[in-house]
Amino acid sequence: MEQLFTYEKLFSFAEQVFIKIGCTQKEATTATTSLLSADLRGVDSHGIARLSGYVRLWEVQRVNATPNIKIIHETPSTAVVDGDAGLGLVVAPFAMQVAIDKAKNVGTGWVSVQNSNHFGIAGIHAMMALQSDMIGIAMTNASALVAPTFSKDKMLGTNPIAVAIPAGNEAAFVADFATTTAANGKLEILQRKNKPLPKGWAQNKDGIESINAHELKEGGALLPLGGDREGSSHKGYMLGSIVDIFSAVLSGANYGPWVPPFPAYIPMPTNMPGKGIGHFFGAMRIDAFRPAQEFKNDIDKWIQAFKKAAPINAAQKVIIPGEPEIAYEKERKANGIPLLDVVVKDLQSVGEKLRVHFEI
Amino acid sequence: MEQLFTYEKLFSFAEQVFIKIGCTQKEATTATTSLLSADLRGVDSHGIARLSGYVRLWEVQRVNATPNIKIIHETPSTAVVDGDAGLGLVVAPFAMQVAIDKAKNVGTGWVSVQNSNHFGIAGIHAMMALQSDMIGIAMTNASALVAPTFSKDKMLGTNPIAVAIPAGNEAAFVADFATTTAANGKLEILQRKNKPLPKGWAQNKDGIESINAHELKEGGALLPLGGDREGSSHKGYMLGSIVDIFSAVLSGANYGPWVPPFPAYIPMPTNMPGKGIGHFFGAMRIDAFRPAQEFKNDIDKWIQAFKKAAPINAAQKVIIPGEPEIAYEKERKANGIPLLDVVVKDLQSVGEKLRVHFEI
Repeated sequence: MEQLFTYEKLFSFAEQVFIKIGCTQKEATTATTSLLSADLRGVDSHGIARLSGYVRLWEVQRVNATPNIKIIHETPSTAVVDGDAGLGLVVAPFAMQVAIDKAKNVGTGWVSVQNSNHFGIAGIHAMMALQSDMIGIAMTNASALVAPTFSKDKMLGTNPIAVAIPAGNEAAFVADFATTTAANGKLEILQRKNKPLPKGWAQNKDGIESINAHELKEGGALLPLGGDREGSSHKGYMLGSIVDIFSAVLSGANYGPWVPPFPAYIPMPTNMPGKGIGHFFGAMRIDAFRPAQEFKNDIDKWIQAFKKAAPINAAQKVIIPGEPEIAYEKERKANGIPLLDVVVKDLQSVGEKLRVHFEI
Repeated sequence: MEQLFTYEKLFSFAEQVFIKIGCTQKEATTATTSLLSADLRGVDSHGIARLSGYVRLWEVQRVNATPNIKIIHETPSTAVVDGDAGLGLVVAPFAMQVAIDKAKNVGTGWVSVQNSNHFGIAGIHAMMALQSDMIGIAMTNASALVAPTFSKDKMLGTNPIAVAIPAGNEAAFVADFATTTAANGKLEILQRKNKPLPKGWAQNKDGIESINAHELKEGGALLPLGGDREGSSHKGYMLGSIVDIFSAVLSGANYGPWVPPFPAYIPMPTNMPGKGIGHFFGAMRIDAFRPAQEFKNDIDKWIQAFKKAAPINAAQKVIIPGEPEIAYEKERKANGIPLLDVVVKDLQSVGEKLRVHFEI
């Protein structure tokens, strides 16, 4: 069962929760904006449903609500940012802004982040670059749920990549995707509905492909994009590895099987080689390559060509990356954001714990 | 049937062929090194088997053997290079060197290339960065053989991505992969053997998945990494699109369905929006982020952890990207490069045409 809530009501609630755990007003607003962008854009798994998870990380002192986020090394086009164990929802916009500022100066900016936490959806951070006529890139590693091709062991997170590219009259091109066949949030939806998984999503503890949506709790693993060797899962494994290395080995964060888990009740890995989780951000000024308007005209032409590509079924045209999210955002701003009853109850209990009223 | 040839013999032949079509000695050596790296590394589809294809492009004046390759726009961390219709095998190393030089100055370098041709394998260009303790990135677009998710139309090339990452005691991490389930070269191998395709590789002209290895000649298309919608082919479509835009829209080359075909006998697309095909290169200096030795120690640790991940079958351990290519290179340098009889005949006819002796 679901209930609809206005964006404003959820925003106000989440913002007060972040203030109660010690965030400044400014950082609470930033964190809430990052978090709720997921609900607006239809990525329900990464939005306000995770608020209680962030609070639990704060309770076990894995999230620092008053971090001193800072650049610890830099060159004209690069920086490493120490998130000081802050909310990734706040660390990520800080680091992306550093990338954008560097791009203003020397054409591009590239920032690797250590000592951070889960940053919500990657796409919203990449999109920060759009207003400056830049291409934005965001990626993050995450705790290991994914087995590399040929292995039974969980060695990589779902390690998403987001790329936002400005257009002219068309909406921006915004790709944002896990480097697994399916993100863990998609799995959770099928778990709740007790439905089988499609082929290529998961394997059991022995490495045999499985359609059991609960396989991860039984020692199984998610599969890299491609599914199996014939479907080229080694390419998904390579993509997830690149995200892991750019985000965490370049910055000095934890990588591979040592990335801290999001659920606060799961014990931390032992012998961790770095600090917190890692992110990677990039910004490329369009006019560091060619005049921005020329580029945008060509992107419009690119988008229009793909929209006009002959569909296999007339009812389903080719989708431009970012289009479905824009439709969600429009609909949900107008009609409200649907929350499952379990999420509503969870928010109520967060509200009671921190004495923030959650009005239904 | 196959025959073995030494690297030196093939090198000398290809170099003379490039000189005969008008390349300088230096550019002939560069082109041959790029081309034969594919044969050494086991990517037979992209090596000397394509030499006759490059010659035919020169014959129809689509390849300029004496190009004036130059930077046409730049900032401290970026450049656009005009390949002047030169061999991609020569243009790519030029552009990658520009990226490396910029990284030396400001931490990273990013170069988008217009007006180029097929550049061989992406990995070898990305690997140029390794000797300077940099991460190297190379990508290229290619003529449209791939249908985006939900479409019957061929709109993208197999658009590969290569990322080379320096290690310490371990061999470098080198990922190099088409953003389709399978590269076209893999398809060609099954065509020659008259074998069916695995699931998720191709679709017929109506957009129905197909196991016919000859489907492309009958109006079909290759499928993006992921295969079908359930397998998340939209992610492969997004990756291929990003490569296309970085390589060609940033530089002013042709993109999407307008990319010139490799076979010289296929007519050029009409109303082409740019110049030639496009590439994109990046170089990131490791010590622009953290001390190179610290990074390399962590990469070694990363690689060792993945090598030790529990295999599903004891006989097949987890593969580190780049490992198979190193094994090929060692074996082929020692024992020679195997060429199919059809390739040998093709080289002989190139030799006869240009009066370069091809000794068997």
